[in-house]
Amino acid sequence: MAEDHHEVVVFGAWPSPYSRRIEAALKLKGVPYKYIEEDLGKKSPSLLKYNPIHKKIPVLVHNGKPIAESLVILEYIDETWQEGYPLLMPKDPYQRSLARFWAKFIDDKCMPAILKACWGEEQERERAGEEVAELLKLMEKELKEKRFFGGENIGMVDIAANIIGFSLGAYEEASGVKLMTREKFPKLCNWRDEFMSNSAVIKENAPPREELISFLRNHFRKNNN
Amino acid sequence: MAEDHHEVVVFGAWPSPYSRRIEAALKLKGVPYKYIEEDLGKKSPSLLKYNPIHKKIPVLVHNGKPIAESLVILEYIDETWQEGYPLLMPKDPYQRSLARFWAKFIDDKCMPAILKACWGEEQERERAGEEVAELLKLMEKELKEKRFFGGENIGMVDIAANIIGFSLGAYEEASGVKLMTREKFPKLCNWRDEFMSNSAVIKENAPPREELISFLRNHFRKNNN
Repeated sequence: MAEDHHEVVVFGAWPSPYSRRIEAALKLKGVPYKYIEEDLGKKSPSLLKYNPIHKKIPVLVHNGKPIAESLVILEYIDETWQEGYPLLMPKDPYQRSLARFWAKFIDDKCMPAILKACWGEEQERERAGEEVAELLKLMEKELKEKRFFGGENIGMVDIAANIIGFSLGAYEEASGVKLMTREKFPKLCNWRDEFMSNSAVIKENAPPREELISFLRNHFRKNNN
Repeated sequence: MAEDHHEVVVFGAWPSPYSRRIEAALKLKGVPYKYIEEDLGKKSPSLLKYNPIHKKIPVLVHNGKPIAESLVILEYIDETWQEGYPLLMPKDPYQRSLARFWAKFIDDKCMPAILKACWGEEQERERAGEEVAELLKLMEKELKEKRFFGGENIGMVDIAANIIGFSLGAYEEASGVKLMTREKFPKLCNWRDEFMSNSAVIKENAPPREELISFLRNHFRKNNN
């Protein structure tokens, strides 16, 4: 297969924050890669070969060896391109454990609650919205006075928080559900502004907003009917 | 609080495979620790202080600093007690990513399916049982001809797989649902035998079987009524 000849290949889907994470990490590191857009309605034989267990994007293939699960891939990228590259993870074991904790928190807690608040069953949306507010409050608190979750530079948690950094705004607009206001979450909103404007890498890596919004509207209209 | 004076403190609950993981890792490393049994019906102020976000065991407190989430704790333990200690994680970044992948697979996929197959709604149990069979087949395949998931020695995935290594047998007996037979999963069954007999550390660390079975019977009887 063609992609076997490339050292680093990413299988992704443009609206997915999970595959955007992988691209953001590789771009921050300056690692060249080939990107393959998957049609999630008709997954390619390559995707099924490289991720036979979950059959999901993103997959990173490095020298022919596949890795699945976005947070697992991010740690792999950080460990593989280490010396002389910007680091996603802190050096100190305790700080590393906190980064893993918050990245997991975003995936296990925030994302399901956000999706439920925007597109869940009508009777569960309000409760989910309250849950999102509680979760975002914890993230707001974790930011403290830091510029990024990673401190002065974008790190693992910032990349994982791309769900809040750029997906959430589009989810809100597509669903009509407002979850993160500047009044309630001033630090998170400042973080989002910094995250989206500070680095050309992150900015260019965000999915085109209007296209994402119409994709989401269409996707959830179909799935809810 | 008394536990602040101990360098390493584990907050756990005896029937939980998650806190057993932490104890197994510390025992394998030979790191002394103080264990505090939590009453899950009435969580202690210390637990709520150290894990205010999830309010769950296990929590590891090292020199007063708390870490939550069992897989996050295991990586912390491995990184903190590194030189001169037995290692839970491989050295190679690709092998490390596989260890993380399988540990996550056990928590995200196997455990929920096992609980559903044993104690889920009656109409979903059969389907969950089929799902468990598919998941165990993947783990059987991953074992290949290795003695442990970690190779010649017990590693991260073996410790995470304590759910299959000792909890599953008790779950089966308490619920009356048979999920892992030697005919279907010979390698996994051999692995379980090796895992439970090879190391005194693992063996002594398993919860007492008969007590666990009656705990589970009582727990799920209450929860299902």
